[in-house]
Amino acid sequence: MVKNMTYDELILRIIILLRDGKRKEFQNVLEELQPYDMAILFKEMPEKHRGRYLSFLTVEDITDLMGELDREEQLVVLNKVGKEKAIHVMNKMDNDDLAALFEEMDSELKDQLLSSMEAEESEAVRVLMNYPPETAGRIMTNRYVWIPQHYTVKEAVVKLKSFAEIAESINYLYVINEQKQLVGVISYRDLILAEPDEKVQELMFTRVISADALQDQEEVARLIERYDFLAIPVVEKNHELVGIVTVDDIIDIVIQEANEDYEKFAASGKAITFDTKSYVAAYRRLPWLILLLFIGLISGSIMSYFEDTLQQVVALAFFMPMIAGMTGNTGTQSLAVVIRGLSKEELNKKTIFRLIFRELKAGIIIGVVCAVVITGIAIVWQGNLLLGFVVGTSLFATLIIGTMAGTIVPIILHKCNVDPAIASGPLITTLNDILSLLIYFGIATAFIHSL
Amino acid sequence: MVKNMTYDELILRIIILLRDGKRKEFQNVLEELQPYDMAILFKEMPEKHRGRYLSFLTVEDITDLMGELDREEQLVVLNKVGKEKAIHVMNKMDNDDLAALFEEMDSELKDQLLSSMEAEESEAVRVLMNYPPETAGRIMTNRYVWIPQHYTVKEAVVKLKSFAEIAESINYLYVINEQKQLVGVISYRDLILAEPDEKVQELMFTRVISADALQDQEEVARLIERYDFLAIPVVEKNHELVGIVTVDDIIDIVIQEANEDYEKFAASGKAITFDTKSYVAAYRRLPWLILLLFIGLISGSIMSYFEDTLQQVVALAFFMPMIAGMTGNTGTQSLAVVIRGLSKEELNKKTIFRLIFRELKAGIIIGVVCAVVITGIAIVWQGNLLLGFVVGTSLFATLIIGTMAGTIVPIILHKCNVDPAIASGPLITTLNDILSLLIYFGIATAFIHSL
Repeated sequence: MVKNMTYDELILRIIILLRDGKRKEFQNVLEELQPYDMAILFKEMPEKHRGRYLSFLTVEDITDLMGELDREEQLVVLNKVGKEKAIHVMNKMDNDDLAALFEEMDSELKDQLLSSMEAEESEAVRVLMNYPPETAGRIMTNRYVWIPQHYTVKEAVVKLKSFAEIAESINYLYVINEQKQLVGVISYRDLILAEPDEKVQELMFTRVISADALQDQEEVARLIERYDFLAIPVVEKNHELVGIVTVDDIIDIVIQEANEDYEKFAASGKAITFDTKSYVAAYRRLPWLILLLFIGLISGSIMSYFEDTLQQVVALAFFMPMIAGMTGNTGTQSLAVVIRGLSKEELNKKTIFRLIFRELKAGIIIGVVCAVVITGIAIVWQGNLLLGFVVGTSLFATLIIGTMAGTIVPIILHKCNVDPAIASGPLITTLNDILSLLIYFGIATAFIHSL
Repeated sequence: MVKNMTYDELILRIIILLRDGKRKEFQNVLEELQPYDMAILFKEMPEKHRGRYLSFLTVEDITDLMGELDREEQLVVLNKVGKEKAIHVMNKMDNDDLAALFEEMDSELKDQLLSSMEAEESEAVRVLMNYPPETAGRIMTNRYVWIPQHYTVKEAVVKLKSFAEIAESINYLYVINEQKQLVGVISYRDLILAEPDEKVQELMFTRVISADALQDQEEVARLIERYDFLAIPVVEKNHELVGIVTVDDIIDIVIQEANEDYEKFAASGKAITFDTKSYVAAYRRLPWLILLLFIGLISGSIMSYFEDTLQQVVALAFFMPMIAGMTGNTGTQSLAVVIRGLSKEELNKKTIFRLIFRELKAGIIIGVVCAVVITGIAIVWQGNLLLGFVVGTSLFATLIIGTMAGTIVPIILHKCNVDPAIASGPLITTLNDILSLLIYFGIATAFIHSL
């Protein structure tokens, strides 16, 4: 019945059940819902019903719900359910989520909560928090099942059954030796298909792909993407198994990293979403803008240097915004290709050489086409053959140089181990403004007496 | 032994085994490798060994290998292994990969290959190819296991065992009724945990989240991300189960869509990678650049309209690149936030109003700060109080308008069902050039007699 209801209908239904105190029917409805649905209900229902909704949810339900909320909402829920239930929920929460949540708390509250939790769970969270942010160790979970290598299939199934609750979303059993070192992996499917007294050791897959606990999360994402895994085991230097990273976390990371690349590329300021306050948005964008303002003034001082030229042929100014703009645009295009490429490919000398050469050739082709177009327009518009020649030649030169700047600047940054994405579109555009003005007025000045 | 070898060592080992014709040992090594590894070996080994390498691989191995190669490499492999083996491989390949491969072939070759394949497999591929590109139907696979709702756990396990080969990477069984309609889902884990004579119907989860066959692949990705699924069933309008989409395909889609957003945003031209030929890159970028060239000329004609003003106060020109640049930069920043936001959130009137208001406030804050800075600089540099006032006021106004343009243009496009990402950074920058010149010279002309 529940299965075809819209969220609005569900909320209405739930509110009625809450009002009438029908716990059993409430639970029947809940069982049909996904954690994401529970979260939508929580967020969409009127504020006044939320407390009662939470009080009807079991600890397991609230744990599921927490996984779908952001940090602030999680804190609201923990506050609403009261300390005792909160501790139970925290004991059951994914460790990586919990570590992220603690990160935001002041350390006194954090220590207090950690000490109220079960020893095993709080220890696991502490371990996680010891790894640097954005590493495999920080995003791993301890909700997986491991078995000793001497187990039979039957013993493995028994252990799996006893850990049923935590084994839900993963589909491999990890096999370890006496030193807790990871030696193999076996899928649930292989367990189902095997005979009960077969040895796990003989069925397992021994060339296990694993991530190092200190490895960058983006690299871990690449491993999972590459091998089409649902989870990847995380090991310490000595190959000791310490956790696993699951594919659902990886999808979130891929999206998050793409957003970060985008933010840097547009110099739009970190983490500005639809919900960010205006003064926060302004604060995050201003550093870039002030920097660009000063760089932009360099263009102005170049023009003041060529004041005589400009005063003699004011028509030169008419083509200036176009030339500066085009140089910026072509630079942005090259930059985007290089930055996206760098996030996927390894760079060796050969690749770099080939890329620069390719962009140079593309720049020349683009330069020729655009120069021909603009020369024609300039001659027709201003009736001045030489002006057309100056504008066309300048555009040809600036397009090639703009393309090269957009290609070489990020490569140099990458080679210096600086994140190439800080060479944002606006930065390249502003730099290309300067280059284009130098070239344009340089060429114009050379011909000034004939213009 | 194989497990700690580098790729170079593995290649050496394999080449020796190929040379000595040791098929059995070769197969032992292969069993320890992931499909991705097989593909790396294939691509990295000297060309002359590839044919023999392929001849030593079983049809299953080649099928795995194919999944890791791009279209062109897949065609090379199919040609190398000979028609008979190629047909066997195609029978076993993922249908979605095969459909994508056929897309690139001329229709005669395609029809010939399709008719040589097993009827069931070629039919499945034909079905896939009937769905539009980038829909759930196009990326789904038929490699999943379904069971009728009246089955017991034991019957389900028997069916699962008989379909072991294709059931590898998915971890749910889909339950259908007599009309082939999807009515439930049960995980392998629940099967392991249940008693053999329990009814599937009673164990299964009935509020199944599914994708519509015609749904956009990006929406399917969002469903999987949201619910942390490993696979999602795909149904026709009448709720008939027609396939599933797996999480590994979704990761690829998320990456691909992020790249496409990036390309559009930078107007960098579709699908230009490090390997694209220079003339192709130039050809893909030129349409944008030519368009932007003409729009850029509008800036020039605005300046020519204000020629008198410019001639009287040439110093005005010095601040022009900075003002135009800053307006472009602030527009790009707003644009990035709006476009990334639109890819995640639903837009209703309230959200739009709030967003525009937020950006307006942010624009005012940014405008005030930058205007104060530039007024100071202009007065000190040019020693002209009024010029400082004109430049400052203009920057204040253009920053606000630039921010608004970067916010409102993509929203309008979105509302008109045009992809807002075509409002690329370069386009907004060029439009903001025009707006900023109009404002700057407008204000300057108003004060021209006092300057």
